[in-house]
Amino acid sequence: MCQLLGMNANTPTDLVFSFTGFAKRAEEHKDGFGIAFFEDAGVRLFVDAQSAAVSPVAEMVRHYPIRSDNVIAHIRKATQGRVALQNTHPFQRELWGRYWAFAHNGDLKNFAPPLHGAFRPVGGTDSELAFCWLMQELAKAHAGVPSIAELTVTLGELAPRVAAHGTFNFMLSNGQALWAHCSTQLHYLLRQHPFHTAHLQDEDMSVDFAQLTQASDRVAVVVTQPLTANEAWVAFAPGELRVFVDGQATPT
Amino acid sequence: MCQLLGMNANTPTDLVFSFTGFAKRAEEHKDGFGIAFFEDAGVRLFVDAQSAAVSPVAEMVRHYPIRSDNVIAHIRKATQGRVALQNTHPFQRELWGRYWAFAHNGDLKNFAPPLHGAFRPVGGTDSELAFCWLMQELAKAHAGVPSIAELTVTLGELAPRVAAHGTFNFMLSNGQALWAHCSTQLHYLLRQHPFHTAHLQDEDMSVDFAQLTQASDRVAVVVTQPLTANEAWVAFAPGELRVFVDGQATPT
Repeated sequence: MCQLLGMNANTPTDLVFSFTGFAKRAEEHKDGFGIAFFEDAGVRLFVDAQSAAVSPVAEMVRHYPIRSDNVIAHIRKATQGRVALQNTHPFQRELWGRYWAFAHNGDLKNFAPPLHGAFRPVGGTDSELAFCWLMQELAKAHAGVPSIAELTVTLGELAPRVAAHGTFNFMLSNGQALWAHCSTQLHYLLRQHPFHTAHLQDEDMSVDFAQLTQASDRVAVVVTQPLTANEAWVAFAPGELRVFVDGQATPT
Repeated sequence: MCQLLGMNANTPTDLVFSFTGFAKRAEEHKDGFGIAFFEDAGVRLFVDAQSAAVSPVAEMVRHYPIRSDNVIAHIRKATQGRVALQNTHPFQRELWGRYWAFAHNGDLKNFAPPLHGAFRPVGGTDSELAFCWLMQELAKAHAGVPSIAELTVTLGELAPRVAAHGTFNFMLSNGQALWAHCSTQLHYLLRQHPFHTAHLQDEDMSVDFAQLTQASDRVAVVVTQPLTANEAWVAFAPGELRVFVDGQATPT
Protein backbone atom coordinates (compact mmCIF):
# COMPACT_ATOMS: atom_id res chain seq x y z
CA MET A 1 0.00 0.00 0.00
CA CYS A 2 1.04 3.57 -0.55
CA GLN A 3 1.27 6.34 2.00
CA LEU A 4 -0.17 9.84 1.93
CA LEU A 5 0.91 13.12 3.48
CA GLY A 6 -0.97 16.40 3.30
CA MET A 7 -0.62 19.85 4.79
CA ASN A 8 -2.94 22.83 5.01
CA ALA A 9 -1.82 26.07 6.65
CA ASN A 10 -3.04 29.62 7.15
CA THR A 11 0.37 30.98 6.18
CA PRO A 12 2.89 29.59 3.67
CA THR A 13 4.79 26.92 5.59
CA ASP A 14 7.61 24.63 4.64
CA LEU A 15 7.17 20.87 4.94
CA VAL A 16 10.84 19.89 5.24
CA PHE A 17 10.43 18.34 8.71
CA SER A 18 7.35 16.25 7.90
CA PHE A 19 8.58 15.27 4.44
CA THR A 20 11.88 14.05 5.90
CA GLY A 21 10.08 11.65 8.23
CA PHE A 22 7.61 10.65 5.54
CA ALA A 23 10.30 10.02 2.89
CA LYS A 24 12.07 7.72 5.34
CA ARG A 25 9.17 5.33 4.81
CA ALA A 26 10.08 5.17 1.13
CA GLU A 27 12.49 2.34 1.86
CA GLU A 28 9.43 0.12 1.85
CA HIS A 29 7.40 2.23 -0.62
CA LYS A 30 9.96 2.37 -3.39
CA ASP A 31 7.94 2.61 -6.60
CA GLY A 32 8.04 6.36 -6.95
CA PHE A 33 7.06 9.43 -5.03
CA GLY A 34 5.44 12.74 -5.73
CA ILE A 35 4.66 16.00 -4.00
CA ALA A 36 2.47 18.92 -5.05
CA PHE A 37 3.08 22.33 -3.48
CA PHE A 38 0.45 25.01 -3.99
CA GLU A 39 1.71 28.56 -3.89
CA ASP A 40 -1.15 31.00 -4.37
CA ALA A 41 -2.96 29.66 -7.47
CA GLY A 42 0.20 28.06 -8.82
CA VAL A 43 1.32 24.54 -8.16
CA ARG A 44 4.63 22.72 -8.33
CA LEU A 45 4.36 19.01 -8.83
CA PHE A 46 7.58 17.05 -8.31
CA VAL A 47 7.37 13.40 -9.27
CA ASP A 48 9.93 10.65 -9.70
CA ALA A 49 9.48 6.99 -10.55
CA GLN A 50 12.45 6.34 -8.25
CA SER A 51 12.10 5.86 -4.50
CA ALA A 52 12.06 9.01 -2.38
CA ALA A 53 14.96 7.43 -0.48
CA VAL A 54 17.32 7.80 -3.48
CA SER A 55 15.63 10.25 -5.87
CA PRO A 56 17.59 13.46 -6.56
CA VAL A 57 14.20 15.19 -6.76
CA ALA A 58 13.31 14.07 -3.23
CA GLU A 59 16.76 15.14 -2.08
CA MET A 60 16.09 18.62 -3.49
CA VAL A 61 12.67 18.73 -1.77
CA ARG A 62 14.24 17.76 1.58
CA HIS A 63 16.64 20.70 1.36
CA TYR A 64 14.69 23.44 -0.43
CA PRO A 65 12.20 24.94 2.03
CA ILE A 66 9.34 25.61 -0.38
CA ARG A 67 6.67 27.58 1.49
CA SER A 68 3.18 26.48 0.65
CA ASP A 69 -0.40 26.72 1.94
CA ASN A 70 -1.43 23.30 0.68
CA VAL A 71 0.71 20.26 0.02
CA ILE A 72 -0.08 16.68 -1.02
CA ALA A 73 2.66 14.03 -1.06
CA HIS A 74 2.58 10.33 -1.87
CA ILE A 75 5.04 7.45 -1.76
CA ARG A 76 4.07 4.54 -3.93
CA LYS A 77 4.13 0.81 -3.64
CA ALA A 78 2.64 -0.24 -6.96
CA THR A 79 -0.55 -2.30 -6.90
CA GLN A 80 -2.30 -1.33 -10.15
CA GLY A 81 -0.37 0.25 -13.04
CA ARG A 82 3.31 -0.37 -13.73
CA VAL A 83 6.14 1.72 -12.27
CA ALA A 84 6.20 4.72 -14.60
CA LEU A 85 6.03 8.47 -14.34
CA GLN A 86 2.44 8.65 -15.63
CA ASN A 87 1.36 6.35 -12.78
CA THR A 88 3.00 8.43 -10.07
CA HIS A 89 0.79 10.43 -7.67
CA PRO A 90 -0.21 13.20 -7.13
CA PHE A 91 -2.10 13.70 -10.37
CA GLN A 92 -2.96 17.18 -11.57
CA ARG A 93 -5.76 18.70 -13.63
CA GLU A 94 -7.28 22.16 -14.14
CA LEU A 95 -10.93 22.92 -13.39
CA TRP A 96 -12.61 26.34 -13.14
CA GLY A 97 -9.28 28.06 -13.69
CA ARG A 98 -7.66 26.38 -10.66
CA TYR A 99 -5.20 23.52 -10.49
CA TRP A 100 -6.29 20.43 -8.57
CA ALA A 101 -3.97 17.77 -7.17
CA PHE A 102 -5.03 14.31 -6.00
CA ALA A 103 -3.31 11.32 -4.39
CA HIS A 104 -4.80 7.99 -3.38
CA ASN A 105 -3.93 5.15 -1.07
CA GLY A 106 -5.80 1.92 -1.64
CA ASP A 107 -7.02 -0.38 -4.33
CA LEU A 108 -10.27 -0.19 -6.31
CA LYS A 109 -11.89 -3.22 -7.92
CA ASN A 110 -14.36 -3.25 -10.81
CA PHE A 111 -14.30 0.53 -10.94
CA ALA A 112 -15.06 1.58 -14.52
CA PRO A 113 -17.18 4.73 -14.43
CA PRO A 114 -18.26 6.39 -17.68
CA LEU A 115 -15.96 9.26 -18.64
CA HIS A 116 -17.36 11.85 -21.02
CA GLY A 117 -14.03 13.14 -22.24
CA ALA A 118 -13.20 16.32 -20.38
CA PHE A 119 -10.88 14.46 -17.97
CA ARG A 120 -9.14 11.30 -19.12
CA PRO A 121 -6.44 9.24 -17.41
CA VAL A 122 -2.98 9.36 -18.99
CA GLY A 123 -1.61 6.37 -17.08
CA GLY A 124 -3.07 3.02 -16.05
CA THR A 125 -3.97 3.42 -12.38
CA ASP A 126 -7.35 3.07 -10.69
CA SER A 127 -6.32 6.21 -8.76
CA GLU A 128 -6.05 8.55 -11.74
CA LEU A 129 -9.31 7.13 -13.08
CA ALA A 130 -11.02 7.95 -9.76
CA PHE A 131 -9.55 11.48 -9.87
CA CYS A 132 -10.78 12.06 -13.44
CA TRP A 133 -14.23 10.85 -12.45
CA LEU A 134 -14.30 13.11 -9.37
CA MET A 135 -13.28 16.13 -11.51
CA GLN A 136 -15.92 15.28 -14.10
CA GLU A 137 -18.66 14.89 -11.48
CA LEU A 138 -17.64 18.09 -9.63
CA ALA A 139 -17.82 19.97 -12.94
CA LYS A 140 -21.24 18.46 -13.70
CA ALA A 141 -22.63 19.20 -10.24
CA HIS A 142 -21.84 22.93 -10.27
CA ALA A 143 -22.71 25.40 -13.01
CA GLY A 144 -20.49 28.15 -11.64
CA VAL A 145 -17.47 28.08 -9.37
CA PRO A 146 -18.69 26.59 -6.08
CA SER A 147 -17.67 27.57 -2.55
CA ILE A 148 -15.47 25.29 -0.44
CA ALA A 149 -18.59 24.30 1.55
CA GLU A 150 -20.49 23.39 -1.63
CA LEU A 151 -17.53 21.40 -2.95
CA THR A 152 -17.32 19.55 0.35
CA VAL A 153 -21.00 18.56 0.16
CA THR A 154 -20.54 17.26 -3.39
CA LEU A 155 -17.36 15.35 -2.48
CA GLY A 156 -19.20 13.86 0.48
CA GLU A 157 -21.73 12.43 -1.99
CA LEU A 158 -19.15 11.26 -4.54
CA ALA A 159 -16.54 9.64 -2.27
CA PRO A 160 -18.73 6.75 -1.05
CA ARG A 161 -19.58 5.85 -4.66
CA VAL A 162 -15.88 5.24 -5.33
CA ALA A 163 -15.21 3.76 -1.89
CA ALA A 164 -17.83 1.08 -2.62
CA HIS A 165 -15.22 -0.41 -5.00
CA GLY A 166 -12.47 -0.85 -2.41
CA THR A 167 -10.10 1.22 -0.32
CA PHE A 168 -10.29 4.93 -1.04
CA ASN A 169 -8.09 6.96 1.27
CA PHE A 170 -7.42 10.13 -0.69
CA MET A 171 -6.29 13.73 -0.52
CA LEU A 172 -7.43 16.45 -2.87
CA SER A 173 -6.58 20.15 -3.01
CA ASN A 174 -7.28 23.12 -5.25
CA GLY A 175 -4.85 25.36 -3.37
CA GLN A 176 -7.65 26.81 -1.22
CA ALA A 177 -8.54 23.76 0.88
CA LEU A 178 -7.32 20.24 1.55
CA TRP A 179 -9.91 17.47 1.47
CA ALA A 180 -9.02 14.14 3.04
CA HIS A 181 -11.14 11.01 2.91
CA CYS A 182 -10.52 7.88 4.96
CA SER A 183 -11.54 4.36 4.08
CA THR A 184 -9.17 2.51 6.37
CA GLN A 185 -6.35 4.63 7.75
CA LEU A 186 -5.68 8.35 8.05
CA HIS A 187 -4.62 10.66 10.89
CA TYR A 188 -4.42 14.39 11.35
CA LEU A 189 -2.80 16.83 13.68
CA LEU A 190 -3.40 20.54 14.25
CA ARG A 191 -0.35 22.57 15.22
CA GLN A 192 -1.15 25.96 16.70
CA HIS A 193 -0.14 28.26 19.54
CA PRO A 194 1.37 27.35 21.99
CA PHE A 195 3.83 25.45 19.78
CA HIS A 196 6.13 22.72 21.14
CA THR A 197 9.03 20.55 20.07
CA ALA A 198 8.06 17.67 17.80
CA HIS A 199 10.17 14.55 17.37
CA LEU A 200 9.99 12.36 14.25
CA GLN A 201 9.12 8.70 14.73
CA ASP A 202 11.10 7.54 11.70
CA GLU A 203 14.29 9.51 12.13
CA ASP A 204 16.27 11.11 14.94
CA MET A 205 15.14 14.65 14.19
CA SER A 206 13.37 17.23 16.31
CA VAL A 207 12.03 20.70 15.60
CA ASP A 208 10.98 23.28 18.14
CA PHE A 209 8.07 24.89 16.31
CA ALA A 210 7.91 27.61 18.98
CA GLN A 211 11.14 28.99 17.48
CA LEU A 212 9.84 28.96 13.90
CA THR A 213 6.28 30.20 14.17
CA GLN A 214 4.14 33.22 14.89
CA ALA A 215 1.39 32.88 17.52
CA SER A 216 -1.23 33.27 14.76
CA ASP A 217 0.12 30.36 12.63
CA ARG A 218 -2.04 27.29 12.23
CA VAL A 219 -1.02 24.15 10.36
CA ALA A 220 -2.93 20.92 9.79
CA VAL A 221 -0.92 17.82 8.87
CA VAL A 222 -2.74 14.75 7.54
CA VAL A 223 -0.93 11.46 7.09
CA THR A 224 -1.52 7.72 6.77
CA GLN A 225 0.37 6.95 9.99
CA PRO A 226 1.42 9.53 12.62
CA LEU A 227 4.81 11.12 11.91
CA THR A 228 5.70 12.18 15.45
CA ALA A 229 5.65 10.34 18.75
CA ASN A 230 4.78 13.17 21.11
CA GLU A 231 1.85 14.94 19.48
CA ALA A 232 -1.90 14.38 19.60
CA TRP A 233 -2.76 12.73 16.28
CA VAL A 234 -6.46 12.14 15.66
CA ALA A 235 -7.56 9.06 13.72
CA PHE A 236 -10.17 9.51 11.02
CA ALA A 237 -13.20 7.24 11.23
CA PRO A 238 -13.77 4.92 8.26
CA GLY A 239 -15.87 6.76 5.68
CA GLU A 240 -15.00 10.17 7.11
CA LEU A 241 -14.32 13.14 4.85
CA ARG A 242 -12.73 16.24 6.35
CA VAL A 243 -11.87 19.56 4.81
CA PHE A 244 -9.00 21.67 6.11
CA VAL A 245 -9.01 25.42 5.49
CA ASP A 246 -6.53 27.90 6.97
CA GLY A 247 -5.02 25.16 9.14
CA GLN A 248 -8.33 24.22 10.74
CA ALA A 249 -10.35 21.02 10.47
CA THR A 250 -14.03 20.95 9.66
CA PRO A 251 -15.84 17.66 10.11
CA THR A 252 -18.37 17.06 7.37
CA MET B 1 11.49 38.92 -23.89
CA CYS B 2 11.65 35.34 -22.76
CA GLN B 3 13.68 32.54 -24.28
CA LEU B 4 12.60 29.08 -25.37
CA LEU B 5 14.42 25.77 -25.58
CA GLY B 6 12.97 22.52 -26.91
CA MET B 7 14.25 19.04 -27.66
CA ASN B 8 12.84 16.11 -29.58
CA ALA B 9 14.74 12.83 -29.84
CA ASN B 10 14.26 9.30 -31.12
CA THR B 11 15.72 7.88 -27.91
CA PRO B 12 15.49 9.26 -24.36
CA THR B 13 18.24 11.86 -24.15
CA ASP B 14 19.39 14.10 -21.35
CA LEU B 15 19.42 17.84 -21.85
CA VAL B 16 22.07 18.75 -19.28
CA PHE B 17 24.46 20.26 -21.83
CA SER B 18 21.90 22.42 -23.62
CA PHE B 19 20.10 23.42 -20.42
CA THR B 20 23.39 24.56 -18.86
CA GLY B 21 24.03 26.96 -21.73
CA PHE B 22 20.39 28.04 -21.82
CA ALA B 23 20.16 28.65 -18.05
CA LYS B 24 23.23 30.88 -18.29
CA ARG B 25 21.00 33.35 -20.12
CA ALA B 26 18.79 33.53 -17.02
CA GLU B 27 20.97 36.30 -15.64
CA GLU B 28 19.03 38.56 -17.95
CA HIS B 29 15.78 36.53 -17.90
CA LYS B 30 15.36 36.38 -14.17
CA ASP B 31 11.59 36.22 -13.58
CA GLY B 32 11.30 32.47 -13.30
CA PHE B 33 12.06 29.41 -15.33
CA GLY B 34 10.39 26.13 -16.13
CA ILE B 35 11.13 22.87 -17.88
CA ALA B 36 8.83 20.02 -18.88
CA PHE B 37 10.35 16.58 -19.48
CA PHE B 38 8.18 13.97 -21.17
CA GLU B 39 9.01 10.39 -20.31
CA ASP B 40 6.71 8.01 -22.18
CA ALA B 41 3.21 9.43 -21.52
CA GLY B 42 4.30 10.97 -18.23
CA VAL B 43 5.60 14.46 -17.78
CA ARG B 44 7.67 16.22 -15.15
CA LEU B 45 7.20 19.93 -15.00
CA PHE B 46 9.73 21.81 -12.87
CA VAL B 47 8.95 25.47 -12.37
CA ASP B 48 10.34 28.17 -10.13
CA ALA B 49 9.50 31.83 -9.88
CA GLN B 50 13.21 32.40 -9.12
CA SER B 51 15.81 32.85 -11.84
CA ALA B 52 17.34 29.67 -13.27
CA ALA B 53 20.70 31.17 -12.29
CA VAL B 54 19.96 30.79 -8.55
CA SER B 55 16.99 28.39 -8.29
CA PRO B 56 17.67 25.14 -6.39
CA VAL B 57 15.28 23.50 -8.85
CA ALA B 58 17.39 24.61 -11.82
CA GLU B 59 20.49 23.45 -9.96
CA MET B 60 18.91 20.00 -9.59
CA VAL B 61 17.96 19.94 -13.29
CA ARG B 62 21.56 20.85 -14.28
CA HIS B 63 22.89 17.85 -12.35
CA TYR B 64 20.21 15.17 -12.68
CA PRO B 65 20.42 13.69 -16.20
CA ILE B 66 16.70 13.11 -16.79
CA ARG B 67 16.33 11.19 -20.06
CA SER B 68 13.45 12.38 -22.13
CA ASP B 69 12.08 12.22 -25.71
CA ASN B 70 10.54 15.66 -25.62
CA VAL B 71 11.50 18.67 -23.54
CA ILE B 72 10.29 22.27 -23.42
CA ALA B 73 12.10 24.87 -21.30
CA HIS B 74 11.51 28.56 -20.79
CA ILE B 75 13.27 31.38 -18.98
CA ARG B 76 11.05 34.32 -18.28
CA LYS B 77 11.40 38.07 -18.40
CA ALA B 78 7.94 39.18 -17.35
CA THR B 79 5.96 41.32 -19.79
CA GLN B 80 2.32 40.41 -19.00
CA GLY B 81 1.34 38.82 -15.67
CA ARG B 82 3.24 39.38 -12.44
CA VAL B 83 6.15 37.20 -11.24
CA ALA B 84 4.34 34.23 -9.70
CA LEU B 85 4.33 30.47 -10.03
CA GLN B 86 1.02 30.40 -11.92
CA ASN B 87 2.52 32.69 -14.57
CA THR B 88 5.60 30.54 -15.12
CA HIS B 89 5.94 28.58 -18.36
CA PRO B 90 5.64 25.83 -19.50
CA PHE B 91 1.93 25.40 -18.84
CA GLN B 92 0.38 21.96 -18.74
CA ARG B 93 -3.04 20.52 -19.54
CA GLU B 94 -4.49 17.10 -20.39
CA LEU B 95 -6.31 16.41 -23.66
CA TRP B 96 -7.30 13.02 -25.15
CA GLY B 97 -5.57 11.23 -22.27
CA ARG B 98 -2.18 12.86 -22.98
CA TYR B 99 -0.39 15.66 -21.21
CA TRP B 100 0.42 18.74 -23.26
CA ALA B 101 3.06 21.34 -22.39
CA PHE B 102 3.33 24.80 -23.90
CA ALA B 103 5.73 27.73 -23.63
CA HIS B 104 5.60 31.08 -25.40
CA ASN B 105 7.98 33.88 -26.22
CA GLY B 106 6.41 37.16 -27.23
CA ASP B 107 3.63 39.52 -26.40
CA LEU B 108 0.00 39.43 -27.58
CA LYS B 109 -2.21 42.51 -27.74
CA ASN B 110 -6.01 42.62 -27.72
CA PHE B 111 -6.16 38.84 -27.61
CA ALA B 112 -9.39 37.86 -25.85
CA PRO B 113 -10.77 34.75 -27.55
CA PRO B 114 -13.99 33.15 -26.28
CA LEU B 115 -13.26 30.24 -23.91
CA HIS B 116 -16.05 27.71 -23.48
CA GLY B 117 -14.82 26.36 -20.15
CA ALA B 118 -12.93 23.12 -20.78
CA PHE B 119 -9.56 24.91 -20.54
CA ARG B 120 -9.23 28.05 -18.45
CA PRO B 121 -6.14 30.03 -17.50
CA VAL B 122 -5.07 29.85 -13.85
CA GLY B 123 -2.66 32.78 -14.03
CA GLY B 124 -2.76 36.14 -15.75
CA THR B 125 -0.56 35.75 -18.85
CA ASP B 126 -1.49 36.14 -22.49
CA SER B 127 0.57 32.96 -23.01
CA GLU B 128 -1.55 30.64 -20.88
CA LEU B 129 -4.67 32.15 -22.47
CA ALA B 130 -3.28 31.33 -25.93
CA PHE B 131 -2.49 27.79 -24.79
CA CYS B 132 -6.01 27.26 -23.40
CA TRP B 133 -7.48 28.54 -26.66
CA LEU B 134 -5.23 26.24 -28.73
CA MET B 135 -6.26 23.24 -26.60
CA GLN B 136 -9.93 24.16 -26.92
CA GLU B 137 -9.72 24.58 -30.68
CA LEU B 138 -7.72 21.35 -31.15
CA ALA B 139 -10.40 19.50 -29.16
CA LYS B 140 -13.18 21.11 -31.23
CA ALA B 141 -11.47 20.36 -34.54
CA HIS B 142 -11.06 16.60 -33.96
CA ALA B 143 -13.76 14.18 -32.88
CA GLY B 144 -11.33 11.37 -32.10
CA VAL B 145 -7.64 11.35 -31.30
CA PRO B 146 -5.92 12.84 -34.36
CA SER B 147 -2.61 11.80 -35.88
CA ILE B 148 0.47 14.00 -35.58
CA ALA B 149 -0.02 15.04 -39.21
CA GLU B 150 -3.64 16.02 -38.59
CA LEU B 151 -2.67 17.97 -35.46
CA THR B 152 0.00 19.77 -37.45
CA VAL B 153 -2.50 20.85 -40.09
CA THR B 154 -4.87 22.19 -37.41
CA LEU B 155 -2.07 23.99 -35.57
CA GLY B 156 -0.99 25.49 -38.89
CA GLU B 157 -4.48 27.01 -39.17
CA LEU B 158 -4.69 28.15 -35.54
CA ALA B 159 -1.23 29.68 -35.04
CA PRO B 160 -1.67 32.60 -37.46
CA ARG B 161 -4.94 33.55 -35.75
CA VAL B 162 -3.03 34.10 -32.50
CA ALA B 163 0.06 35.54 -34.22
CA ALA B 164 -2.16 38.26 -35.71
CA HIS B 165 -2.22 39.72 -32.18
CA GLY B 166 1.52 40.08 -31.74
CA THR B 167 4.63 37.94 -31.35
CA PHE B 168 3.87 34.25 -31.06
CA ASN B 169 7.01 32.14 -30.91
CA PHE B 170 5.88 28.98 -29.15
CA MET B 171 6.68 25.35 -28.43
CA LEU B 172 4.08 22.68 -27.81
CA SER B 173 4.46 18.97 -27.09
CA ASN B 174 2.24 16.04 -26.19
CA GLY B 175 5.20 13.72 -25.60
CA GLN B 176 4.98 12.32 -29.15
CA ALA B 177 6.04 15.35 -31.15
CA LEU B 178 7.42 18.84 -30.63
CA TRP B 179 5.74 21.68 -32.52
CA ALA B 180 7.59 24.97 -32.84
CA HIS B 181 6.17 28.15 -34.33
CA CYS B 182 8.20 31.22 -35.18
CA SER B 183 6.95 34.78 -35.33
CA THR B 184 10.25 36.56 -35.01
CA GLN B 185 13.10 34.37 -33.79
CA LEU B 186 13.69 30.62 -33.51
CA HIS B 187 16.49 28.27 -34.58
CA TYR B 188 16.87 24.52 -34.78
CA LEU B 189 19.64 22.00 -35.09
CA LEU B 190 19.60 18.30 -35.95
CA ARG B 191 22.27 16.20 -34.29
CA GLN B 192 22.80 12.82 -35.88
CA HIS B 193 25.56 10.46 -36.99
CA PRO B 194 28.42 11.31 -37.46
CA PHE B 195 28.40 13.18 -34.13
CA HIS B 196 30.98 15.83 -33.25
CA THR B 197 32.11 17.95 -30.34
CA ALA B 198 29.82 20.87 -29.56
CA HIS B 199 30.95 23.95 -27.66
CA LEU B 200 28.52 26.19 -25.74
CA GLN B 201 28.39 29.86 -26.68
CA ASP B 202 27.42 31.03 -23.19
CA GLU B 203 29.80 28.96 -21.06
CA ASP B 204 33.18 27.30 -21.42
CA MET B 205 31.79 23.79 -21.82
CA SER B 206 32.17 21.21 -24.58
CA VAL B 207 30.67 17.81 -25.15
CA ASP B 208 31.87 15.21 -27.63
CA PHE B 209 28.55 13.68 -28.65
CA ALA B 210 30.41 10.94 -30.55
CA GLN B 211 31.36 9.51 -27.13
CA LEU B 212 27.81 9.60 -25.77
CA THR B 213 25.65 8.43 -28.65
CA GLN B 214 24.72 5.45 -30.79
CA ALA B 215 24.91 5.82 -34.57
CA SER B 216 21.10 5.54 -34.75
CA ASP B 217 20.45 8.43 -32.32
CA ARG B 218 18.79 11.56 -33.65
CA VAL B 219 18.12 14.70 -31.64
CA ALA B 220 16.52 17.96 -32.68
CA VAL B 221 17.19 21.05 -30.54
CA VAL B 222 15.08 24.17 -31.00
CA VAL B 223 15.98 27.43 -29.31
CA THR B 224 15.43 31.17 -29.52
CA GLN B 225 19.12 31.87 -30.18
CA PRO B 226 21.75 29.24 -31.12
CA LEU B 227 23.39 27.57 -28.10
CA THR B 228 26.62 26.46 -29.76
CA ALA B 229 29.14 28.27 -31.92
CA ASN B 230 30.30 25.43 -34.15
CA GLU B 231 27.09 23.74 -35.33
CA ALA B 232 24.76 24.39 -38.26
CA TRP B 233 21.73 26.09 -36.71
CA VAL B 234 18.85 26.77 -39.11
CA ALA B 235 16.76 29.90 -38.65
CA PHE B 236 12.97 29.53 -38.87
CA ALA B 237 11.22 31.86 -41.28
CA PRO B 238 8.66 34.24 -39.76
CA GLY B 239 5.29 32.46 -39.68
CA GLU B 240 6.87 29.02 -39.99
CA LEU B 241 5.53 26.06 -38.02
CA ARG B 242 7.63 22.90 -37.83
CA VAL B 243 6.94 19.59 -36.20
CA PHE B 244 9.76 17.39 -34.88
CA VAL B 245 9.20 13.65 -34.52
CA ASP B 246 11.89 11.11 -33.62
CA GLY B 247 14.56 13.79 -33.87
CA GLN B 248 13.64 14.79 -37.42
CA ALA B 249 12.19 18.03 -38.75
CA THR B 250 9.19 18.20 -41.01
CA PRO B 251 8.45 21.51 -42.67
CA THR B 252 4.72 22.22 -42.80
